[in-house]
Amino acid sequence: MSTAGQVIRCKAAVAWESGKPLSIEEVEVAPPQKNEVRIKILFTSLCHTDVYFWDAKGQNPLFPRILGHEAGGIVESVGEGVTDLEPGDHVLPIFTGECKECAHCMSEESNMCNLLRINTDRGEMIHDGKSRFSINGKPIYHFLGTSTFSEYTVVHVGQVAKINPDAPLDKVCVLSCGMSTGFGATVNVAKPKKGQSVAIFGLGAVGLAAAEGARVSGASRIIGVDLNPSRFEQAKKFGVTEFVNPKDHNKPVQEVIAEMTGGGVDRSVECTGSIQAMISAFECVHDGWGVAVLVGVPNKDDAFKTHPVNLLNERTLKGTFFGNYKPRTDIPAVVEKYMNKELELDKFITHSVPFSEINKAFELMLAGEGLRCVIRMDA
Amino acid sequence: MSTAGQVIRCKAAVAWESGKPLSIEEVEVAPPQKNEVRIKILFTSLCHTDVYFWDAKGQNPLFPRILGHEAGGIVESVGEGVTDLEPGDHVLPIFTGECKECAHCMSEESNMCNLLRINTDRGEMIHDGKSRFSINGKPIYHFLGTSTFSEYTVVHVGQVAKINPDAPLDKVCVLSCGMSTGFGATVNVAKPKKGQSVAIFGLGAVGLAAAEGARVSGASRIIGVDLNPSRFEQAKKFGVTEFVNPKDHNKPVQEVIAEMTGGGVDRSVECTGSIQAMISAFECVHDGWGVAVLVGVPNKDDAFKTHPVNLLNERTLKGTFFGNYKPRTDIPAVVEKYMNKELELDKFITHSVPFSEINKAFELMLAGEGLRCVIRMDA
Ligand SMILES: NC(=O)c1ccc[n+]([C@@H]2O[C@H](COP(=O)([O-])OP(=O)(O)OC[C@H]3O[C@@H](n4cnc5c(N)ncnc54)[C@H](O)[C@@H]3O)[C@@H](O)[C@H]2O)c1
Ligand SMILES: NC(=O)c1ccc[n+]([C@@H]2O[C@H](COP(=O)([O-])OP(=O)(O)OC[C@H]3O[C@@H](n4cnc5c(N)ncnc54)[C@H](O)[C@@H]3O)[C@@H](O)[C@H]2O)c1
Ligand SMILES: [Zn+2]
Ligand SMILES: [Zn+2]
Ligand SMILES: [Zn+2]
Ligand SMILES: [Zn+2]
Repeated sequence: MSTAGQVIRCKAAVAWESGKPLSIEEVEVAPPQKNEVRIKILFTSLCHTDVYFWDAKGQNPLFPRILGHEAGGIVESVGEGVTDLEPGDHVLPIFTGECKECAHCMSEESNMCNLLRINTDRGEMIHDGKSRFSINGKPIYHFLGTSTFSEYTVVHVGQVAKINPDAPLDKVCVLSCGMSTGFGATVNVAKPKKGQSVAIFGLGAVGLAAAEGARVSGASRIIGVDLNPSRFEQAKKFGVTEFVNPKDHNKPVQEVIAEMTGGGVDRSVECTGSIQAMISAFECVHDGWGVAVLVGVPNKDDAFKTHPVNLLNERTLKGTFFGNYKPRTDIPAVVEKYMNKELELDKFITHSVPFSEINKAFELMLAGEGLRCVIRMDA
Repeated sequence: MSTAGQVIRCKAAVAWESGKPLSIEEVEVAPPQKNEVRIKILFTSLCHTDVYFWDAKGQNPLFPRILGHEAGGIVESVGEGVTDLEPGDHVLPIFTGECKECAHCMSEESNMCNLLRINTDRGEMIHDGKSRFSINGKPIYHFLGTSTFSEYTVVHVGQVAKINPDAPLDKVCVLSCGMSTGFGATVNVAKPKKGQSVAIFGLGAVGLAAAEGARVSGASRIIGVDLNPSRFEQAKKFGVTEFVNPKDHNKPVQEVIAEMTGGGVDRSVECTGSIQAMISAFECVHDGWGVAVLVGVPNKDDAFKTHPVNLLNERTLKGTFFGNYKPRTDIPAVVEKYMNKELELDKFITHSVPFSEINKAFELMLAGEGLRCVIRMDA
C-alpha cells in the first residue's frame, strides 16, 4: 500500500537539548510539498558538523532538532513539481543544494547555489517556512535541510542526488559530505598532476579524503601534516608517504616542507580549520606554480595573513566548499568512481552501529576514534 | 667591416649619482662572452623601474650605472655557445630571463627562471661577475642585465626575445616590460571569459595594459579604480567603461563594486603596488568563481590580510610576474598579436625624444605625464 500523500509515523533520533544524548522517538513526517521529496533513509553516518550543532557551542541553538546529513536512502514519494525523481530512486541527500537556475548554478565553476546554499540557522523547509516533523503536533526542527537521523525525512529536490541503484548505500552514504569535500578539494580544485607532490594539513576524515584524491591523481609524494601524531598510523593506509608534526620543529612548518621538497610542494590542501595551518599550507607551496586549497572552517575572527610577495611569486590560493561539487550534477559520477574502483571508500568506514545505538557513534567521534561510523536504520 | 670580437666605442647615458640627470658619455662595450649577445639598441622606452633605481630611495644604490630595460634592437654579434641568435636578428632584451633548463623553465606555468630571474642588485654579468661597460678602463654597472640606455649593450642570451623583423621596433619596444606585464596579467592569469566584468585597480601604464587585455578578451564591463581622477580621461581610450575613485565613497571600494555588479566582478587585476588596493581587488570579486590577480610591487613590510571565509567562498587569489610570459618562448607571439592588430600598442606611446634628450623622458614620468616615452637612439 502506498504511503504517498499520507503522514508517516516512524522512528527518529531527536536532539532535545544541547549536548544531551539523542532519544529515539516516534515522529510524524508530513508528505513532501512543492519541490520536495520524502526519502526512506537506510544508512546515515556521523560527521563533525552534526556534533558541533548538537553541542551548539558558539552556534545558534535550535532544539528540538533532528540532526544528520550524510546518508543514503530511497525515494518514498515526491511533491508537486518534482519531475526528475520518482519513488524507488536511490539517492543521497546533500546539505547544500543546486537549484539549477541561479547565477551560481549556471556558472561552470561555482556550487554555491543562491537558493539552497548551506544554512545552518534554518530549521524549516523553505517552501512554507514550516517543519515536516512533529511529535504530537509539536514541530521538531530540521537540520541543513536533510535531517537524516530519521527513518523518513523530507528534503528539497535541489538537495537530492540520484545515484546508481547498484551502489551499496551503506558505503556511498559517506559521499554526502566529508569524503566528497576532501576528495573534491584535491581533484577538482588543487588538481595535482601525475608525479607532483601534495601536502595535506589535518589528517581527519576530510584530510584523508583529500589524500585519497592525491593518490588517485598519481601524486608522487603525499606529505601529511598534523599536530596529533596518533593520526599518522592510520594515514599510512591512505597513501600518505611522509609525516610532519609542526611540534617536532623549531621553525615554521612551511620552511620544513620547503626543505624536504627543494622549494615547496606542488599542491597543498588544508583540512584543519586552524588559521595557522591555512597560512602554512599557502606558504609551503612552490613559487612559480604552487596551488594551495583551503577547506577547513575557520573561527569568526580569524585573519588570513601573508606577505604579498608570496603571491607575486606566482602562487595560487583558493578555497573550496563541498569540494566544488554540484550536488545533483556531479555526485552521481563520484558514486560511479567508487563503483569502478577508482576511488576507495571502505577504508573510511571504521565503525557501524544499529540506529538504536546512535549515541555510541557520538561517543566514538568525541573520543576521536575512527573516521566514519555508519548507522544502520533498519537495525 | 665587422665589429664582432672588438670593443665598441659608443654613446651611453650614464647615471653617476642617484637622482642626478643622466649624462651621455662615450663608453667602451666589450664583446659578448659565453652565452651572451651584443645588441645595437635602436629604441628604448622609460619605465618606472628605471626611475626607482635612478632615484635609489630604499634601493641598494649602485653607481655609476647604465639603466634602461624596455627596448628593441638588432643583434650585432654573439658569444660562444649562442646558437639560436645571429647578427641581424631583431630582438627585445628582457629584464628577466629564461634559461630553458631549470625547474621553472621546464614548468608550463612558471616564468621565474632560477638562473635569470630578475635581480635588481646585480650590476655585472653572471658569466664572470664583470661588467662589459667601461669608461677609460673604469667599469660601469649593468642594470637588470639589459642596460638599454646605450647604443650597444651586452645581454645574456636567456634574456633576449627574437622577434619578427617586420615589427616596428619603435612600437614593440614597449613590450619588453610594462605592457606585457599588464596585458599578460589579464590574458594569461585572470583569463576573463567573453562577456565577463573586470575591475582594474590603478590606471597607470601597467593597469591600462591590463585593461587592453580585458578589451581583447571581450569583457562586457571594464571598471577602472584609481585614487587620481586625472587618470580617468585617458583611460577611456583604453576601453575602460566605468570609473570608481575610492575617495568618493565612505565605504570600502570592494563594497561599492559589489553593489555595482550584483555581488562582485568576475575578475580583478591590481596594478597599484598599494596593499589596500590588493585587499580590495581580492574582496571585490564575486564568490563562487571570482579571480583576483596581483601585479603591483608592494612595500617590504606590507601584509595581505583577509578573512579566510572570503577564500572558502570560492574566490581565487593569484599573483603574477611579467604577466606570466616566458620571455623567449612567449614574447615573439605577443609581437605577432600586435602585427595582426589583435593588440594595440600605439596608444601607450604618448611621447618620443631623441637620445640626447633622455632626461626629458625622466621629467615627463616624474610629472606623471603620459604613459610611455620612446627614446630614439639614432637621433
Ligand atoms: N567533516 C566534514 O564533513 C566537513 C565538511 C566540510 C568542511 N569541513 C571542515 O574540514 C575540516 C576538517 O574536518 P575533519 O572532519 O577532518 O576534522 P578533524 O577534527 O577530524 O581533523 C582535523 C585534524 O587537523 C589537525 N590539526 C588541527 N590544527 C592543526 C594545525 N595547526 N596543523 C596541523 N594539523 C592540525 C587535528 O589534529 C586533526 O587531526 C574542519 O574545519 C571542518 O569544519 C568538514
Ligand atoms: N611599470 C612596469 O613596467 C611594471 C612591471 C611590473 C610590475 N609593475 C608594478 O605595477 C604597478 C603599476 O605600475 P605603473 O607603472 O602602472 O604605475 P603608476 O604609478 O603609473 O600607476 C599606479 C596607479 O595606481 C594608482 N593607485 C595607487 N594606490 C591606489 C589605491 N589604493 N587604489 C586605487 N588606485 C591606486 C595611482 O594613482 C596610479 O595611477 C607598480 O607597483 C609597479 O611596480 C610595474
Ligand atoms: Zn542555484
Ligand atoms: Zn558533514
Ligand atoms: Zn630557467
Ligand atoms: Zn619596467
